[in-house]
Amino acid sequence: MRDVYYDQLDGIIDELVTMTHQVQSAVRRASQALLEGDAEVAEDVISRDAEIDAERERIEERSFELLALQQPVAGDLRMLVAALRMVADLERMGDLSVHVAKVARLRVPGTAVPEAMVPTIARMAEVAQDMVGKVADIIAERDVDAAYALEQADEEMDSLRSSSFRKMLGDDWEHGVEPAVDIALLGRYYERIADHAVSLARRVVYLVTGQNPHMLDA
Amino acid sequence: MRDVYYDQLDGIIDELVTMTHQVQSAVRRASQALLEGDAEVAEDVISRDAEIDAERERIEERSFELLALQQPVAGDLRMLVAALRMVADLERMGDLSVHVAKVARLRVPGTAVPEAMVPTIARMAEVAQDMVGKVADIIAERDVDAAYALEQADEEMDSLRSSSFRKMLGDDWEHGVEPAVDIALLGRYYERIADHAVSLARRVVYLVTGQNPHMLDA
Repeated sequence: MRDVYYDQLDGIIDELVTMTHQVQSAVRRASQALLEGDAEVAEDVISRDAEIDAERERIEERSFELLALQQPVAGDLRMLVAALRMVADLERMGDLSVHVAKVARLRVPGTAVPEAMVPTIARMAEVAQDMVGKVADIIAERDVDAAYALEQADEEMDSLRSSSFRKMLGDDWEHGVEPAVDIALLGRYYERIADHAVSLARRVVYLVTGQNPHMLDA
Repeated sequence: MRDVYYDQLDGIIDELVTMTHQVQSAVRRASQALLEGDAEVAEDVISRDAEIDAERERIEERSFELLALQQPVAGDLRMLVAALRMVADLERMGDLSVHVAKVARLRVPGTAVPEAMVPTIARMAEVAQDMVGKVADIIAERDVDAAYALEQADEEMDSLRSSSFRKMLGDDWEHGVEPAVDIALLGRYYERIADHAVSLARRVVYLVTGQNPHMLDA
């Protein structure tokens, strides 16, 4: 029985990695839809979010079953509670990708992002997608060092967001209100994806070291 | 021992209600700071967020302790897992109030919201604060009917947000980019507070009925 139990715990980690890859693909394709004004790709991201939600339910059910039936203690209990929290982060990242895709869809056949802002938004998209990819590795390999390093990528995201505000609120902004509103919200979505990536990384740190991730919030 | 255990479970519910009231006060005062351009109130909301975070840690630690030491099954297990998720929602609502307060602070001695938009934003603030207040009652009384009714308040929030976009993107918007960006983000913050309130209400439904709240997402 114990062996089946440990296989099940490992299975949950594997499913978390799978779900993280699904989310990474959603972020990548939503950004592609946004920058290329591609309605078909946007629709695809929106409709495939149901797969991410289903994966969440699957992992939640398994974790809950193990909690209820196996009465795990210490490290295993910590792992299962962390898994329940990690799927919540991942599902939100999927939702945020859907928000990006919806902004893209709203502006088709045009694009939401004016030429001058493309480099900033494209870089935000790249940073976000890259962070999610790193999270998959961090979970798979329980890599605490990589988890700490992720905070640096998050700093780049913050500075990209500040730079986008400076441009929109500067005197030479000539694109009017609509693109500014789109970019403010897009920046928020990418920033939140990055925040959730950091949160996931911290949960891995907590799992491996037993140190409460809240201590790292300061 | 069992009696102490049940007292501890009840204690967690009480603390959740306390935390929800703290969040309600944060939403109310952040909105006051925003609409009155009051920097002192904004600072107060920002600095007191640490109390909400501390309450989260307290509830998490207690829930985790009960999970680890008492090995609860069925309903009690469900309750403790729900508590861990509810504090996460509540903490985010506190963070979102801080975001509102920071927009307020940024525009002092002026106010972020142009006169013509005050009714819409004031109503969003009211709906959000009211929803949080209802959540406190729903948790305290495990009131499933009130939990379902909360979805209607959320619909008003959605329609307020749509109306704010229509105004900002209309031809007679004369306030320029900065207030539009502020309002787009403020609308997003209030909308997220409302979403978390609905999520909390659904967790209570799940606790009482055992029905997975995901089923209600559709």
